[in-house]
Amino acid sequence: MAFRFVSAACFVALLSLATPVATVAKEAPTKRLVLIDDDIVGLNGAPALLLQAPDVEVLGITTTSGSVWRDTATAYALRTVEILGRTDVPVVPGATYPLLNTQESTKRWEGLYGRLEFKGPWTEPASGGSPGTPSPSVVPSLPIGDPVTKPSSEIAAAFLVRMVRAHPHQITLFATGPMTNIALAQSLDPSFAANVKELVYMGGSLNPQQTLGTPAAAAFAREFVNTPRREFNIRWDPEAARIMAHGAWPKVTMVPIDPSTGTQWTRGFLDSLRSAHTALTDTLQTGLEPGFPIWDEIAAMVWLEPAIVTRAETLYIDFDTNQTAGYGDTLSWHEAYRPHLGERAQTVVLSIDRVKMEATMRALYKRPLKR
Amino acid sequence: MAFRFVSAACFVALLSLATPVATVAKEAPTKRLVLIDDDIVGLNGAPALLLQAPDVEVLGITTTSGSVWRDTATAYALRTVEILGRTDVPVVPGATYPLLNTQESTKRWEGLYGRLEFKGPWTEPASGGSPGTPSPSVVPSLPIGDPVTKPSSEIAAAFLVRMVRAHPHQITLFATGPMTNIALAQSLDPSFAANVKELVYMGGSLNPQQTLGTPAAAAFAREFVNTPRREFNIRWDPEAARIMAHGAWPKVTMVPIDPSTGTQWTRGFLDSLRSAHTALTDTLQTGLEPGFPIWDEIAAMVWLEPAIVTRAETLYIDFDTNQTAGYGDTLSWHEAYRPHLGERAQTVVLSIDRVKMEATMRALYKRPLKR
Repeated sequence: MAFRFVSAACFVALLSLATPVATVAKEAPTKRLVLIDDDIVGLNGAPALLLQAPDVEVLGITTTSGSVWRDTATAYALRTVEILGRTDVPVVPGATYPLLNTQESTKRWEGLYGRLEFKGPWTEPASGGSPGTPSPSVVPSLPIGDPVTKPSSEIAAAFLVRMVRAHPHQITLFATGPMTNIALAQSLDPSFAANVKELVYMGGSLNPQQTLGTPAAAAFAREFVNTPRREFNIRWDPEAARIMAHGAWPKVTMVPIDPSTGTQWTRGFLDSLRSAHTALTDTLQTGLEPGFPIWDEIAAMVWLEPAIVTRAETLYIDFDTNQTAGYGDTLSWHEAYRPHLGERAQTVVLSIDRVKMEATMRALYKRPLKR
Repeated sequence: MAFRFVSAACFVALLSLATPVATVAKEAPTKRLVLIDDDIVGLNGAPALLLQAPDVEVLGITTTSGSVWRDTATAYALRTVEILGRTDVPVVPGATYPLLNTQESTKRWEGLYGRLEFKGPWTEPASGGSPGTPSPSVVPSLPIGDPVTKPSSEIAAAFLVRMVRAHPHQITLFATGPMTNIALAQSLDPSFAANVKELVYMGGSLNPQQTLGTPAAAAFAREFVNTPRREFNIRWDPEAARIMAHGAWPKVTMVPIDPSTGTQWTRGFLDSLRSAHTALTDTLQTGLEPGFPIWDEIAAMVWLEPAIVTRAETLYIDFDTNQTAGYGDTLSWHEAYRPHLGERAQTVVLSIDRVKMEATMRALYKRPLKR
């Protein structure tokens, strides 16, 4: 792959005087390589954006428990690549459980520090007859249709290690779920983080503010006004997040809750996709929930189009792993205040241009499917 | 392998009326399968005992950092199988670093709670010109000779998962170092622990008492009198130990510090091996240090000859992972007091018959080398 990149770079250099580089780039194999690690649920728009981006090559989707159990996330990932006609992209199942966190310890923690709003598959069924949390291996019927393809037999962390060894310094690791698979890959191979090109992740929370006046926005604000440092991806597996935060990544971009408060999925946005009439835009009509903030897709768009970022800061980031009130909380410092305990500088995205982001998202979602 | 076992069992049953079973067992392939996970240093006597035992098949030795860095442990493991003429046994390198623990956080912890006596490769060089702790990849010249063979290119945790899947419910996992590789294997494959036959490990500490009057015994007692719940294997990677303690192993035998206080390596014992004049007994003359308690070898002998155990209790065991004074401490409860947070019953060996143990150790060490 190194050879392919050198060749392509030379090719661009030779032709660049005569031909616009952008045109060449579309044809040449200089795609940006990405591995997606996700607790994918619904037709998560972030993998779809990366799969639709013309200059991006998705090397695989690894799954983890988080919002749903790992096996359900795997089914959603398989169904996503089926809808997009991209079953050439391997879906590799990863961690079922967090490294140390358990349902039982979460219950005890809640007895000391208060109820958690969302606990992924550990969330209690709503009063009124919900069937309850299924066991990890029970995959419900998916609202976007059940997959017919099968996942890889490899273990996600081993797959991540293998891919990064095969393409050193060339892969963006794009993570929008709990960090379990990533922490395992780092622990299996101490050179893993340094050999990734960059890490982009959705997770953590600094100081989110309600910025929209909708009832949905007010409901989400009721949660983070009391717990500005708590975010689910991290809270599901705080120890994995800490391992991630200490990794020697050449570059890290954090997309916390903060920039999401200025966004939400709307009926208007979904309606604007209808005219494309692809399997993707049709499925997005039912796969996304108007009123919810945009989360993972912000991370995808920050990577695909950095110009949408209107405010970002370089901060040192870590996560609390003590079993106190702050278990899983985001820790952040400016340089002068950092404890020097292994935490590293991350580019923290604090706000984005929603209009600009949605325009590009719309264009990507409406593109003809690649196959 | 399942088929081999069934056949062998039938073979034994058919012949048992005419021939003593013990004789048949030596010939038949009904060997006890074991995987050794070790921060091996010196010519650690435990792997040697298992490799010498006639009814045991060592499927591999996985290495981890602990007493020394992983690469040094790997070199010692390679040299051990070379000396024993058992280079058919794969040596598979594992974790270089603990999951979360770091040298820097250990220093801060010491600033709050006091100096740790032994920190493996993080131990400060003794005053007076020691060259200091080498970097993880620098392997010093070994006093038992440098290996000429090479380790496996597989990663230990992946190897452990692969072997246990190949021989479900048939492998004893024998662990005498920090639990990093084992925790990784459990996290990679949630069915790993349940598919092992049993886990036998040296680690943890309950309430050790000085039982020998030697100066060396007094020196070790000065350490554990103030920290009866602290033991290095666990303290190097407390989070991995907690993951291990929560695993669904069908059976767990813990060999903590406690039974070791009644033992020590003596010149007399080493002298008694000389007459065998094998590469093993010759190397043991310099590879072991008289005065030190016997540690890992007790675990090996408890598994090989359970009759040496003079006192054992079934206790529920866990390990403290909060960054307080008790970080890495052993937690133990009788049934009525356990917190039900995932801890499980373990058979905890509290004392052993030293004379009986040494007799069998001597016989095993003096056996002709297998190849």
